[in-house]
Amino acid sequence: METLYIRQKQIFVTAFQVIKCKAAVAWEPNKPVVIEEIEVAPPQANEVRIKIVATAVCHSDLYHLFEGMNKDGFPTVLGHEAAGIVESVGPGVTEFQPGDKVIPIFLSQCQECHLCKNPKTNQCAVAWIHQETMSAVESRFTCKGKRVLQFMGTSTFSEYTVVHQMAVAKIDPAAPLDKVCLVGCGISTGYGAAVNTAKVEPGSTCAVFGLGAVGLAAVMGCKAAGAKRIIAVDINPEKAEKAKVFGATDFVNPKDHDKPISEVLTEMTNGGVDYSVECVGNVQVMRSALESSAQGWGVSVIVGWTTLHDIAIQPIHLISGRTWKGSLFGGFKSKDGVPKMVKAYLDKKLKLDEFITHNMTLDQANDAIELMKNCKW
Amino acid sequence: METLYIRQKQIFVTAFQVIKCKAAVAWEPNKPVVIEEIEVAPPQANEVRIKIVATAVCHSDLYHLFEGMNKDGFPTVLGHEAAGIVESVGPGVTEFQPGDKVIPIFLSQCQECHLCKNPKTNQCAVAWIHQETMSAVESRFTCKGKRVLQFMGTSTFSEYTVVHQMAVAKIDPAAPLDKVCLVGCGISTGYGAAVNTAKVEPGSTCAVFGLGAVGLAAVMGCKAAGAKRIIAVDINPEKAEKAKVFGATDFVNPKDHDKPISEVLTEMTNGGVDYSVECVGNVQVMRSALESSAQGWGVSVIVGWTTLHDIAIQPIHLISGRTWKGSLFGGFKSKDGVPKMVKAYLDKKLKLDEFITHNMTLDQANDAIELMKNCKW
Ligand SMILES: NC(=O)c1ccc[n+]([C@@H]2O[C@H](COP(=O)([O-])OP(=O)(O)OC[C@H]3O[C@@H](n4cnc5c(N)ncnc54)[C@H](O)[C@@H]3O)[C@@H](O)[C@H]2O)c1
Ligand SMILES: NC(=O)c1ccc[n+]([C@@H]2O[C@H](COP(=O)([O-])OP(=O)(O)OC[C@H]3O[C@@H](n4cnc5c(N)ncnc54)[C@H](O)[C@@H]3O)[C@@H](O)[C@H]2O)c1
Ligand SMILES: [Zn+2]
Ligand SMILES: [Zn+2]
Ligand SMILES: [Zn+2]
Ligand SMILES: [Zn+2]
Repeated sequence: METLYIRQKQIFVTAFQVIKCKAAVAWEPNKPVVIEEIEVAPPQANEVRIKIVATAVCHSDLYHLFEGMNKDGFPTVLGHEAAGIVESVGPGVTEFQPGDKVIPIFLSQCQECHLCKNPKTNQCAVAWIHQETMSAVESRFTCKGKRVLQFMGTSTFSEYTVVHQMAVAKIDPAAPLDKVCLVGCGISTGYGAAVNTAKVEPGSTCAVFGLGAVGLAAVMGCKAAGAKRIIAVDINPEKAEKAKVFGATDFVNPKDHDKPISEVLTEMTNGGVDYSVECVGNVQVMRSALESSAQGWGVSVIVGWTTLHDIAIQPIHLISGRTWKGSLFGGFKSKDGVPKMVKAYLDKKLKLDEFITHNMTLDQANDAIELMKNCKW
Repeated sequence: METLYIRQKQIFVTAFQVIKCKAAVAWEPNKPVVIEEIEVAPPQANEVRIKIVATAVCHSDLYHLFEGMNKDGFPTVLGHEAAGIVESVGPGVTEFQPGDKVIPIFLSQCQECHLCKNPKTNQCAVAWIHQETMSAVESRFTCKGKRVLQFMGTSTFSEYTVVHQMAVAKIDPAAPLDKVCLVGCGISTGYGAAVNTAKVEPGSTCAVFGLGAVGLAAVMGCKAAGAKRIIAVDINPEKAEKAKVFGATDFVNPKDHDKPISEVLTEMTNGGVDYSVECVGNVQVMRSALESSAQGWGVSVIVGWTTLHDIAIQPIHLISGRTWKGSLFGGFKSKDGVPKMVKAYLDKKLKLDEFITHNMTLDQANDAIELMKNCKW
């Protein structure tokens, strides 16, 4: 699909029309996605239609496809970590106009609910999330006569998507979209989990479990917060080098030890880490992360996503003075936080380029998914 | 056992001698305690022998006897919530002298370990606690030629006990021991869980699960911290009136509802309470307390004690912005906190008298235990 973009008048010729474009449709759980031509209806009231310029793959996409596998969440278009340009806006939208550079966000900020109005949280009461199906109520997608669900309110493995304005952030026009797309999920999530949720203190000792983009960004957040020692933990030894780029001082592979990883870390740190961040999405690792944190004041933060299992812990692990928290989108109020993260990148205070390992086209969506699934980087 | 107390010279004639006295010995799990004559050896280095003047029963005593039932923790003398007078001190003790009014505490404050030196916690690395047996390494008790373990480092269902000086607090000589004994566990625990651990804020909404002394003290703590609404929760309807005495604004009996209690509270409060405190010792209730706290900023504190089961929760309950903590001895550094709590009572800023329902003698120990077990008050 070609679009004609007239700079001065900020009008796309496609406005008010159904756009036919390419998207990677996940018809069924646990099957390859299929590159299809889909129809993207025009934005309705308070919605924004976005031409997606760059999108990344996040583990949450894989979770939906291979782990959650809830049939009610299909067919859908995956993808939620992206950047693009506003193509057209629906009635009532004044904050955005065609041509604006934007990042869609899976977490809304309606600015009106009791959660949005409270500075203590970044949660929003009108968030799209149907926990089990991971899909929004609304969708402007159809394909072959079927309604296609919108994944996490965004669906960015598509040339165009329609997102409610309360889940879109306008960013600096100078921002390179192929880089700042990462701010749309993983990097804000990991970085913020350390800085906003754990509130890592200068001089402290931290452990980050899982070194995908989320975990590496958590390492970067610990470093930015002034942590003295940052222990990166992953079962993939290839992650060690990358973790050092973002500030890790140590790398531990649980597979190299006979003892439980929590014992290894407790011994290494003479009593446990001040802060631990779980970026895997595995309930056993969540428990280990809590157990690795220090008696008395340890803070452990869950970032990984799963609804498949409960987490089990012994009450004594909390009675002994640990604090357990969770973090959604790194604790950033989404529309407020994203432009600041983009600015931090432009000001060279935040690394993004170092996260990018492959440049691929939408046609290669399955290859990208397989690469992440097999941790091949 | 009579003791001759010479006021001016602060000497008990019993000093340096083995004291024979009465104690309630728990020979076996799940059996009545037996009033026996026991031998209490003189205090060794850094130890203090205390004449117990008043002791109360706490659920943790019952837990050991009827729930934990770990055979390795018997025979023992239960009791850990008491006040008394120093009878004699061992070598190296300069902080205490015979005649001092004191409260033994199950949680030590050695003042030298990395935990004691850190203002963030009240935990102490040399604490007596063998989690499973609930007994100290040392014991100065024998009975019928057998060594009797010291329960929680204190064992106050005895006319005399010997406690390490790092687990004894000197209190105001004006304090009535039959009242301030409650500061030795339940009241400090519940009050502090609200004030120190949850850090209840003025104007907030709180829920307290379980209205024994610990829970009622948590209600009192919420009120002292300025909570606007305090919902007291217990399956015993008789607790409703008492809870109001300490500041509860509402009472909910989970048995009166078909829905889970977390749903009931979430509806009552339009989204969940700001703070919830679990004072039962039941892993299902711990889960309910967490689930009853507000999305976004709810803080839930575990006070109840159990090592029998893991707690299970869904990760989403933390990811959605709740914080989970535990509290031991209400977060008070024990030797520092106890004298302050006693002073608060003397200054009429803390209720204690209202907690006392029965006055009994040591000979009635089994009756007291049965009363608590059957919640008969
Ligand atoms: N809370 C949020 O707002 C939020 C946002 C984005 C992603 N997530 C979740 O964060 C998690 C990480 O996402 P990602 O995109 O970085 O994933 P990823 O798949 O790129 O990385 C996961 C890493 O964990 C490692 N790992 C797997 N098992 C491990 C174990 N037992 N111990 C240590 N490391 C182990 C893998 O080797 C891999 O390096 C996922 O669960 C994702 O769904 C949460
Ligand atoms: N963390 C600590 O430092 C510490 C210190 C002291 C006591 N404790 C623990 O605190 C807990 C309370 O001690 P206590 O002496 O007040 O006990 P208690 O037995 O006097 O009171 C417990 C109360 O919980 C109520 N209850 C039972 N099941 C319930 C349910 N499902 N829902 C709501 N209420 C329920 C009972 O009716 C009773 O009123 C115990 O587990 C005890 O071991 C912990
Ligand atoms: Zn994501
Ligand atoms: Zn909102
Ligand atoms: Zn107690
Ligand atoms: Zn100590």
